[in-house]
Amino acid sequence: MFVEITAGTQPKEPALLHDLNEPLIEHAEGQLFLTETFKIILEEVLCKGTDVKEKVCEWKEPEELAVLLDLELRDTGEPQGKLLKRVKDVAKYSIKTSHPRFFNQLFAGVDYHSMAGRFLTEALNTNLYTYEIAPVFVLVEAEVLRGMHRLVGWTEGDGIFCPGGSISNMYAMNLARYQLFPEIKSRGLWGLPRLTIFTSAESHYSVKKGAALLGIGTDHVILVKVDDGGRMIPEDLEEKIKLAKSEGSVPFLVSCTSGTTVKGAFDPLDHIANLCEKYMLWMHVDAAWGGSVLFSSKHRHLMKGVDRANSVAWNPHKMLVAGLQCSALLLRDTTNLLKRCHSASATYLFQQDKFYDVNLDTGDKSVQCSRKVDCLKLWLMWKAVGSAGLEARVDKAFIHARYLVEQMKKREDNSHLILKSQIFNFFMEACGTMMVGYQPQENRVNFFRVVAFSPLISQKDMDFFLNEIERLGKNM
Amino acid sequence: MFVEITAGTQPKEPALLHDLNEPLIEHAEGQLFLTETFKIILEEVLCKGTDVKEKVCEWKEPEELAVLLDLELRDTGEPQGKLLKRVKDVAKYSIKTSHPRFFNQLFAGVDYHSMAGRFLTEALNTNLYTYEIAPVFVLVEAEVLRGMHRLVGWTEGDGIFCPGGSISNMYAMNLARYQLFPEIKSRGLWGLPRLTIFTSAESHYSVKKGAALLGIGTDHVILVKVDDGGRMIPEDLEEKIKLAKSEGSVPFLVSCTSGTTVKGAFDPLDHIANLCEKYMLWMHVDAAWGGSVLFSSKHRHLMKGVDRANSVAWNPHKMLVAGLQCSALLLRDTTNLLKRCHSASATYLFQQDKFYDVNLDTGDKSVQCSRKVDCLKLWLMWKAVGSAGLEARVDKAFIHARYLVEQMKKREDNSHLILKSQIFNFFMEACGTMMVGYQPQENRVNFFRVVAFSPLISQKDMDFFLNEIERLGKNM
Repeated sequence: MFVEITAGTQPKEPALLHDLNEPLIEHAEGQLFLTETFKIILEEVLCKGTDVKEKVCEWKEPEELAVLLDLELRDTGEPQGKLLKRVKDVAKYSIKTSHPRFFNQLFAGVDYHSMAGRFLTEALNTNLYTYEIAPVFVLVEAEVLRGMHRLVGWTEGDGIFCPGGSISNMYAMNLARYQLFPEIKSRGLWGLPRLTIFTSAESHYSVKKGAALLGIGTDHVILVKVDDGGRMIPEDLEEKIKLAKSEGSVPFLVSCTSGTTVKGAFDPLDHIANLCEKYMLWMHVDAAWGGSVLFSSKHRHLMKGVDRANSVAWNPHKMLVAGLQCSALLLRDTTNLLKRCHSASATYLFQQDKFYDVNLDTGDKSVQCSRKVDCLKLWLMWKAVGSAGLEARVDKAFIHARYLVEQMKKREDNSHLILKSQIFNFFMEACGTMMVGYQPQENRVNFFRVVAFSPLISQKDMDFFLNEIERLGKNM
Repeated sequence: MFVEITAGTQPKEPALLHDLNEPLIEHAEGQLFLTETFKIILEEVLCKGTDVKEKVCEWKEPEELAVLLDLELRDTGEPQGKLLKRVKDVAKYSIKTSHPRFFNQLFAGVDYHSMAGRFLTEALNTNLYTYEIAPVFVLVEAEVLRGMHRLVGWTEGDGIFCPGGSISNMYAMNLARYQLFPEIKSRGLWGLPRLTIFTSAESHYSVKKGAALLGIGTDHVILVKVDDGGRMIPEDLEEKIKLAKSEGSVPFLVSCTSGTTVKGAFDPLDHIANLCEKYMLWMHVDAAWGGSVLFSSKHRHLMKGVDRANSVAWNPHKMLVAGLQCSALLLRDTTNLLKRCHSASATYLFQQDKFYDVNLDTGDKSVQCSRKVDCLKLWLMWKAVGSAGLEARVDKAFIHARYLVEQMKKREDNSHLILKSQIFNFFMEACGTMMVGYQPQENRVNFFRVVAFSPLISQKDMDFFLNEIERLGKNM
């Protein structure tokens, strides 16, 4: 005896006799629901959500929002109409990150080809671990990685898409220490000398998080001084390497940053590469934010020397608007280090007697088992606009940034961008019309971090931003 | 001077003069492309892809497929028509994991409400780290976790969605050792005694992968014997704990399995919980595959004792058909262990002077920074069919499994399910009509792993499976 609740309908008879011959899901009804949802997405998220006349967010306090959303999960299902209302509500109360006035994070904007790739990925719902189960995606991932390798300046190499830049950085750490001490995989850190990592004081927090997770410990992440522009000072790096060695530690990794999180600084890679060669250290470049400058013939000089790195983490979901999550770890290695370091050779998945080249089974390169397909959206977007189109996006981001800085200087008398602790009120009032991030910085209590890289925005959006800051500043 | 390549159109004049007032993306055109893509998804992936008269896959050798897809990334973009052809090709040559004859992996099938949630998530494109940037999703995640907690048998607790079950298991490992030795976060493993993990010989390979990544080493994962059903033998566990202690190691974690990858076995949790209490070990349950039985009043006895665990990893993207990726780590802890263990307190993101309760900013509970929203699809699906509907899916999966076993016994003379090394030929012929996994097992060279949990399938799909095996077996 079996109880069936037909998907999505309020059951009139809660306990229908079930027949094994009947699947639980009704396709026509389901596809209709999906079609209606698509219309809502188009109207509420993509049309209204990118319209400057509409709000960036419909701000609600958590308690109020919880009530509005009617979050509770119950025993019985709900009718389609009610569920569509839920879809609308989720859209309504979510932040419109594609809105031209969303300046809050290192992601923003929308690319429709990427989004088409994302919908297609979701619909095809597969796992990127074997060719057998993901033939198209295995090949697409390899091609996208090849394209990124070329931009780094490598003719060959290895790589993998990871769930975010922090994980990409952790992969690099794990590879670096495995290369130095392969026995670590089986024996662990016991019996080995203390390993130390070097990174700038302005680097992303994932370096410390990674050191903690990998059992290295945050104390063994040595922070190197930065110059006024936020760039790592190579002389200080060398001094700290020497000091660590003199204290009996084993330096094994320098994690450089191309595009720091707050100031957008680029570490001097060529300089650092000299030191990494001299002291035989793995050179990793966290280019999660800045990597996309490699598309630009005008700006790629910021990463001069990147081809000398051992690994590069690069998130196209940031400056290139590929959509979350899209982060690649690129490796110069050609010795299958990634697989040697991470493989567990599970026989139920990575059988060696397959009738195709098992090197196409990428799953054992990953510390994950299930791995979402994050490459198709980037491939489709890249196909759509070409490398030249992506170059244009990067160049435009730089033009925006320059324009903003110039305008701020002109308006310096009227608007003080350092607003002290009234920041809360500011945010609440500003939220509807725009969103901008802030950050305590040195002696200033709060400093605005305006992120203006979206290909969607134009001069008038930046003028709007400056006018809003002035207006809100005066009203305080 | 600035070069613009309009998104997706073959530029007639490659170098247009760029105006800061013009965004790079044309919304109407983009939305049209997305709409056309949606139609292709509906037709090719969802209608044909679930039709038993259509193939599960259009198998191509890698070299041939690479040519068919025209993978190369070029400098210039492509016209919309060509891009839509690409969308069609990706759909055509991908495996139809929603097809009723796809028996290959621990995921399969389609749920349209979940898919609606996934499309909405993609369109809203945000990051699950602060309430400010993801107000709806922060609340939805908390509610879904509450629902899962209740099913485990906890009235409170903590948790987080991770990118896959392997990462969920690694989180549990990291939390367990941090609870025992909090200084590990800053000082690393040096100076600490050898830590050991216990798990069954049939457990998932991610336990070893995690031990390697965390610096513990695979040698310190002690494999406990299993009985004929693939379940961990508690007596052997106790012996091995004692042995490890006598050798100077510090046991800290038992990773039990609810639903092993190959045999689907459930470890005796209550028994193991007794030992974990006796020896003061963290009890983790890898219920990535089996966790969904908690919805079923008929089958939840398989996980009796789970409420005594410290942590549970559970992937609704498997038996519940929520779509990849959807994996929750659930914790009994109420002392904010997750945040204490993983926080880096980055001031640019997790400001403490916000005007809402900063405990809603979940980002510092994660080892990631960017974290994809994986909860909305599950919430919407759960709302759609209710707990009773999800219970029905689980119960149906068990009925399917029983039916298959009975039928196999009846047909034992005709079909030998152990096909030896001709497996390659078998796979190639079978691929078009169905997909099934295999695995070397003990003295049998290959054993079929039939995964029959999709709510889409019916008795005739299983009959088809059995007939196909017979037919192909005879033709060999």
